[in-house]
Amino acid sequence: MDHKSFKEFSQAMSEYIANYLENIRERPVLPTVEPGYLRPLVPASAPESPEKWQDIMEDLERVIMPGVTHWHSPRFHAYFPTANSYPAIVADMLSDAIACIGFTWIASPACTELEVVMLDWLGKLLDLPKEFLASSGGKAGGVIQGTASEATLVALLGAKAKAIRKAKAQNPELTDYEIISKLVGYCSQQAHSSVERAGLLGGVRLRLLDTDERHRLRGDTLKAAIEEDKKAGLIPFYVVATLGTTSCCSFDALEEIGDVCNASEVWLHVDAAYAGSAFICPEFRYLNAGVEKADSFNFNPHKWMLVTFDCSAMWLKDPTDVIDAFNVDPLYLKHEMQGSAPDYRHWQIPLGRRFRALKLWFVMRLYGAENLRAHIRKQIGLAHLFESLLLEDSRFEIFSEVTMGLVCFRLKGTNELNEQLLKMINGHGKIHLVPSKIKGSYFLRLAICSRYTEEEDIRESWKEISTLACNLNN
Amino acid sequence: MDHKSFKEFSQAMSEYIANYLENIRERPVLPTVEPGYLRPLVPASAPESPEKWQDIMEDLERVIMPGVTHWHSPRFHAYFPTANSYPAIVADMLSDAIACIGFTWIASPACTELEVVMLDWLGKLLDLPKEFLASSGGKAGGVIQGTASEATLVALLGAKAKAIRKAKAQNPELTDYEIISKLVGYCSQQAHSSVERAGLLGGVRLRLLDTDERHRLRGDTLKAAIEEDKKAGLIPFYVVATLGTTSCCSFDALEEIGDVCNASEVWLHVDAAYAGSAFICPEFRYLNAGVEKADSFNFNPHKWMLVTFDCSAMWLKDPTDVIDAFNVDPLYLKHEMQGSAPDYRHWQIPLGRRFRALKLWFVMRLYGAENLRAHIRKQIGLAHLFESLLLEDSRFEIFSEVTMGLVCFRLKGTNELNEQLLKMINGHGKIHLVPSKIKGSYFLRLAICSRYTEEEDIRESWKEISTLACNLNN
Repeated sequence: MDHKSFKEFSQAMSEYIANYLENIRERPVLPTVEPGYLRPLVPASAPESPEKWQDIMEDLERVIMPGVTHWHSPRFHAYFPTANSYPAIVADMLSDAIACIGFTWIASPACTELEVVMLDWLGKLLDLPKEFLASSGGKAGGVIQGTASEATLVALLGAKAKAIRKAKAQNPELTDYEIISKLVGYCSQQAHSSVERAGLLGGVRLRLLDTDERHRLRGDTLKAAIEEDKKAGLIPFYVVATLGTTSCCSFDALEEIGDVCNASEVWLHVDAAYAGSAFICPEFRYLNAGVEKADSFNFNPHKWMLVTFDCSAMWLKDPTDVIDAFNVDPLYLKHEMQGSAPDYRHWQIPLGRRFRALKLWFVMRLYGAENLRAHIRKQIGLAHLFESLLLEDSRFEIFSEVTMGLVCFRLKGTNELNEQLLKMINGHGKIHLVPSKIKGSYFLRLAICSRYTEEEDIRESWKEISTLACNLNN
Repeated sequence: MDHKSFKEFSQAMSEYIANYLENIRERPVLPTVEPGYLRPLVPASAPESPEKWQDIMEDLERVIMPGVTHWHSPRFHAYFPTANSYPAIVADMLSDAIACIGFTWIASPACTELEVVMLDWLGKLLDLPKEFLASSGGKAGGVIQGTASEATLVALLGAKAKAIRKAKAQNPELTDYEIISKLVGYCSQQAHSSVERAGLLGGVRLRLLDTDERHRLRGDTLKAAIEEDKKAGLIPFYVVATLGTTSCCSFDALEEIGDVCNASEVWLHVDAAYAGSAFICPEFRYLNAGVEKADSFNFNPHKWMLVTFDCSAMWLKDPTDVIDAFNVDPLYLKHEMQGSAPDYRHWQIPLGRRFRALKLWFVMRLYGAENLRAHIRKQIGLAHLFESLLLEDSRFEIFSEVTMGLVCFRLKGTNELNEQLLKMINGHGKIHLVPSKIKGSYFLRLAICSRYTEEEDIRESWKEISTLACNLNN
């Protein structure tokens, strides 16, 4: 494909994308295809000779769109949001064109350096303690991970390396395997499944601790678990505090947990994957109080801050243990500037990495902090609108406090009734929700996801739920 | 940013990208900036109010380009290539616009299903045994990983889970930790650093085995190591065979290694990250002979097959152990179609995933198999051209056989002499190479990387090296 065709093709794609997004409200949010729908629509093998780009454009509505779940429809209320914005799309075009692999500083200094500075911009927007920022002049700093799952795993592996080192210093006769068999980490029962998965991947025990009536992990619970495990000869080494759980957007008691971790010299990782974006607004920072006690902090601009996936921002007060845990340094990756700037390959699971800081740069500049805050506030306002509509209907109840853009609710009555309601909602296909369950109670989750969502959409979504609930009761 | 501005902005970016790539030969391949160059060029914090997209366009040459190492310059010969193509850039625009997270089938059926079919297309292009393909109707199939590092780690974790399960069946009294402390994996001393790193991350012992005079791991060496370890009470569980090592593009003896692995019931993973793309050409498939004995196979279309990073293609004959190793299944991710199509979240380290199959679809269709093959053949031809130029100069010697697009060479003489030459080459800044070292011998690596590379460029690169070598001898 020559550059002339590229310009035509990309222009046609821009038109298509703008039409797709500006009219996304008109498309059914959930596809109705059955598994295996796509294979008969395309040839069995790659073509031998090149096709025209117009052939691909024609196939988009025939092959792809019937099978797309439209995450950016205002009718999409499942999971948590994933970001979509015009500035981020254009930033990725540039990233794809430069197409450098930023594993070391020399492999493309701009790729590393823009990331260092953008993570400082972002940390300042969230008012993170300066101990997390590269601009503070120490070892600290931020890094873009692919996902919060990877950030949790990276922190766990750093904590594991640190714990092994400490245990060996105290008991030189112990082998690594003996130490690892004694390590134990902690999170709330409401922590994301990826935390439990990080324990599996890292080969260490992870205890899921009970939460209080507001679904928060409390300091006392953690303290009791740590003491119990120490008595049993185990080595507590890692705690994940979740700010904004996936189940119900509860916030672990970070101040209390921080005190316990600091007193026990246990690594504290804060997973604020979804809710972290809200900390750009001063009025929500009370939920992040105690963050100065953490060793690492992570949130996903690719969820709620208009930066397209993948862009998971992670800060480490001291990356030394993470770097040491992963450090394998072959000659072909060495360079003369080593040590004077971060070689981000030591901060992450993969070796390769794209130039993702461009997305942060474009989005923060083209929205400006004020519009990013406005986006968060508007979506939280819409969640409260839905909450108020629901509270006017005595058949329903709110399952847990609405703080962010998520409303957890249920029909008063049995789990079965609520399961039926969800099945009707998703079956009808006008809106899309997913359920959750805490301590035996099944409930529905309505997340405000699309940046196109307006009051009218929320009223429509409520009407759909309310109407289907009537059918259910008949 | 409204859709009108987006269309203008993306059009301006297309123009910029086309100019950048079509004239990339004119830019110095290596930046001359010092660490820390970028911070003074941008404000200390994100702007409060939105800027104009034109402001960003103006900053590209001022802030970004001075710090870019131009991986797509025909003068870039470092590492291995990373891909860049117009069809892939446009595919990513669409992926960013749809912006679905394909962790389950229902989260966007098209995202999963196009991936299943594209990995079949790709597997057929490489002539992989049908036991690896989803179209064979069994459990097998392909998946897009972010990087070869992740594929190596995923295979290791699957192999580890399988080995633990087997050992427990034989000795139910053993704990997981006791079994893990006995596990041992193997690779060649020339395997990529990410293999050693996968061992560190997975918390298992990994032995780097000696290679023959052609830098290949041989079956006998592996067999002897396995027998020795078994005698010592260890449990051999995982072997990585590399096809196209990073150091010198050597090929492990896959047929022999496969026999040893199959006889010992050890998981065999094939890492063909770079060289795998060449197997789309029938004349290079002899290097992949024995692949039918492997459990998993991986190569990176994002290296040499014109699909932009990240797109690392991995096939598993039986993904069961990988899926079981990672499976954590919360209610909010369950859906009714579970089991009828792959839920790719169980096949990878992260939970989230982008719609990357679009890149494969666009690239295979818009190039056609014949042009992809032509690309590989041309680049291998250019490597042989450089080899022949070098062989005409009696000061130089070829370090290892040229099979793909990499030429490993050195000045006859000491390592120090070659280190000086490399320093002069990179210092002069006209071309960029990285070195490697095998068994004490330091050598220079010249990789054919850019799709813009022509014969004239190779003659220029050779002239630069040859001239600087004269200065060195003076």
